[in-house]
Amino acid sequence: MFEVIEKDEIARIGKLYTRHGVIETPALFPVINPSKQYVDLSRIKELGFNQIITNAYIIRKTYGDAAREVGLHEIIGWDGPLMTDSGAYQILQYGNIEVSPDEALRYQVEIGSDIGVILDIPTSYPRPRELVEVEVNETIRRARRAILQLKELDPEHRMLIVGPTQGGVYRDLLAYSARMVSELPFDIYAIGSPTTLLQAYNFTGIIKMILTVKSIIPPGKPVHLFGVGHPLILPLAVALGIDLFDSASYMLYANDDRIILSSRTVRLSELDKDYVLDGCGKRAGELMEMSKEERIRLIAQHNLWTLSRELMEIKQRIKEHDIWSYVAQKARQHPSVYRAYLTLSNSSLFRKLTIKLASGLKVNATQLSILDNSDLARPEVQWARRRLRRLIKGMGVLTNVLIIIGDYEEPFIRTQIANEVTRLGVRVFTYNEVYGLIPIELSDVYPFSQTVRVNVKPRPIKYEIRDSVILVEDKYRDLVKFIKCSGECFIIYVDSLKNIKAYEKYVGLALMKRVNEGSGIK
Amino acid sequence: MFEVIEKDEIARIGKLYTRHGVIETPALFPVINPSKQYVDLSRIKELGFNQIITNAYIIRKTYGDAAREVGLHEIIGWDGPLMTDSGAYQILQYGNIEVSPDEALRYQVEIGSDIGVILDIPTSYPRPRELVEVEVNETIRRARRAILQLKELDPEHRMLIVGPTQGGVYRDLLAYSARMVSELPFDIYAIGSPTTLLQAYNFTGIIKMILTVKSIIPPGKPVHLFGVGHPLILPLAVALGIDLFDSASYMLYANDDRIILSSRTVRLSELDKDYVLDGCGKRAGELMEMSKEERIRLIAQHNLWTLSRELMEIKQRIKEHDIWSYVAQKARQHPSVYRAYLTLSNSSLFRKLTIKLASGLKVNATQLSILDNSDLARPEVQWARRRLRRLIKGMGVLTNVLIIIGDYEEPFIRTQIANEVTRLGVRVFTYNEVYGLIPIELSDVYPFSQTVRVNVKPRPIKYEIRDSVILVEDKYRDLVKFIKCSGECFIIYVDSLKNIKAYEKYVGLALMKRVNEGSGIK
Repeated sequence: MFEVIEKDEIARIGKLYTRHGVIETPALFPVINPSKQYVDLSRIKELGFNQIITNAYIIRKTYGDAAREVGLHEIIGWDGPLMTDSGAYQILQYGNIEVSPDEALRYQVEIGSDIGVILDIPTSYPRPRELVEVEVNETIRRARRAILQLKELDPEHRMLIVGPTQGGVYRDLLAYSARMVSELPFDIYAIGSPTTLLQAYNFTGIIKMILTVKSIIPPGKPVHLFGVGHPLILPLAVALGIDLFDSASYMLYANDDRIILSSRTVRLSELDKDYVLDGCGKRAGELMEMSKEERIRLIAQHNLWTLSRELMEIKQRIKEHDIWSYVAQKARQHPSVYRAYLTLSNSSLFRKLTIKLASGLKVNATQLSILDNSDLARPEVQWARRRLRRLIKGMGVLTNVLIIIGDYEEPFIRTQIANEVTRLGVRVFTYNEVYGLIPIELSDVYPFSQTVRVNVKPRPIKYEIRDSVILVEDKYRDLVKFIKCSGECFIIYVDSLKNIKAYEKYVGLALMKRVNEGSGIK
Repeated sequence: MFEVIEKDEIARIGKLYTRHGVIETPALFPVINPSKQYVDLSRIKELGFNQIITNAYIIRKTYGDAAREVGLHEIIGWDGPLMTDSGAYQILQYGNIEVSPDEALRYQVEIGSDIGVILDIPTSYPRPRELVEVEVNETIRRARRAILQLKELDPEHRMLIVGPTQGGVYRDLLAYSARMVSELPFDIYAIGSPTTLLQAYNFTGIIKMILTVKSIIPPGKPVHLFGVGHPLILPLAVALGIDLFDSASYMLYANDDRIILSSRTVRLSELDKDYVLDGCGKRAGELMEMSKEERIRLIAQHNLWTLSRELMEIKQRIKEHDIWSYVAQKARQHPSVYRAYLTLSNSSLFRKLTIKLASGLKVNATQLSILDNSDLARPEVQWARRRLRRLIKGMGVLTNVLIIIGDYEEPFIRTQIANEVTRLGVRVFTYNEVYGLIPIELSDVYPFSQTVRVNVKPRPIKYEIRDSVILVEDKYRDLVKFIKCSGECFIIYVDSLKNIKAYEKYVGLALMKRVNEGSGIK
């Protein structure tokens, strides 16, 4: 049903097979209003969306039994993958709806939905824990019952079924919900109700929900994040393993004359009249003079275009194995996204998720840019640091080693000095702020030599180093204090490592402990 | 000739009047090849460029005297503003050309160029200082001579004339060049030869050149940055006061199957076949199957589109008085731009330029996001900090004041406690990492209350504080160490400033020194 065809760390491109065609993930389902649809479906397809979602609850209220006969695709006028929501969002909005979970499920099957959702109880926010606990248990009960019912309702398994997790910001409840639901054979798992968090730009809360659920759901299953269609958060969500999104944001914003741009939303009235909205081909000034209805239709198209281009760029970066460069860049476009990004640095759940799910390092043609310490959480860096830690720990106490700090000649390993020193049985390391000590054999390997550092604050290294030599280029003098060296250690400051040959004898002698030159530190 | 119609700190929107119409700045002149132009000029106009530049030297080689009769606009087929370059770029490429400075100038006037450039000597990079010095002096000599000659050649001043500064990375020579040239009545001043720096992504070098020249050129004059057409650097250049750009990058990249995207360039072959290039409406896969010539034409259009949209966004942000938010965001899209951005933090030239040229604070509807310390260089922050410094220094030693650290109720100034404390004659300050101490009267004023801080490391404040009270929310405990308090100081830690009423008596008593409660520090 779901096939991963490309991976970049935790992010992936996949294929989800439905009765009406294949959805290439990551994908977003634009929400279609069955009573009043402003943007033509053909235009939606043209904008790059091969799948849509509509609301089975509203279909039922509008068309009732007629829809069972005519069929959902006929009513909507869409021959591609069509997902239905059960009406749970209406519960979130109105508190209750006039349909039972059983009936909601049966109706979706009978009208021929390609992907149905059980009628769960969305967790609103804020909401007391006791109530959320009751609702989570009810959602689990309904999930179990739905799976049983579907054996009868849909014996040939024509409709894919979504199992939502709930619990919201109560992460233990969310984890419990995810554990219970993931034991059931749903085709797709969903993370429920981030909408209220999204409205408050609480991206940190959403990220924590994703980390919690992704840690539990079987890795091979597609995961849907309900109600999220904001270009600021899509890259980070995909990078954490989300495959599917649905959103009505393009319409909700358009109704309010708000334009979705790649890094922000802006009111139409704030735009310069010559500002071109490429998603509808109009200038802001032209839109301002149109009728409200025409304007909404065009702004909605532009908003969809922005979302489509965002997903296009995300896929492109996954294929380049460079999704985290894009995430790092997007993280700096809004303080709320940057806050969410920073939480990754301190999240043990994220570290565990990376170990569990990440594809590991794929050599990548582009540079790995580390702008500041927040980028050290990137899976590539984590991975490389873990590898180094294991390697260096295995070496025991580092005695009589040579550590080089500076812009050494690359590939250093082929220089004369590296040869001579290695012949003496001396281990050579380079040192930088991102990775700490790097055995010279690895220094020309990805990502160590491809990493570009700008504003990284180093942290002291924890290895015990004794009786060794540190060769430091003058401009990196400050870095020496992060290396603690005991016994008879020599630090040799040099102007430039470009002239490394000039220091060869010096280093060799120091290493063989035949001299007392250099500045010894204890 | 040049009129500034909108300012946002140093950046500006202006109108440059030429014989063939008005150029709204910031503007880019696409370079037009008179012998082989791939992209139709009508398409260039459609993409948002109302002005172009071509090469008078090549026109002269191709059309010779015929161009004097027919006229430049007729030959090119363009009825808008048309600028000519003198052939100086060819000197940079080929070392020398077969036309004298006098003839180059005369020719531009006679063919009817709207904006001409003197034939200067571009500074190449790298290049020994002695040679650059000679070339700078020669450029100055030619500039003086050109101004004299134009009195005869163009007595009605029909052609605007550009005076280039040279000197490149030798900033004293560049400053000297700028001083000399700015004494001459050029219509436009230009910064010469950043091209080689640009090719090496040495944006820091370019920024330093801009700062040097802008510090000297009269503020009301338009400034042109030669040969720069990279979307990564345009926002920062405009934010530092550049008005005009010209570039052949759209073609040079297209020739090489390279696509200019807003935050990077990418090879066509690296793009997913479904990646849509909106500037030409084609997918990467379609382009790959076209003939080389057709492909170049379409990629060039897309590249121009990217540049056009970049300038559109820049203008939009200037109008919103928010250009620095955009600069801060773009700075994080490439390590080389981030490096250039970081140099602003330590540049006294930039601080002086801000004082000299910035419009000062305009209240802005959007938040001021400070992601980390590099953003503290932003003119708005500089301005606000200078204002605070002056204000607080005027207060002398701060004795018996109340400093509040935490998420206090806004507007704090209207709370009961603020009233009571003020009645006691006690000055109240808030404190945060970006601005340090803020007198409570200003705390609700822009930008103090609109500033969103994410990852800012505070610096110790330098004011002398004695016998005072610091009220700190527990979660901001760490910040206390940045405030040095002597005499009888009390620090009162509280759970939340939301319940500030609960602490009123406590604070009041402490301030009146009737208690020894709290934790005194010396």
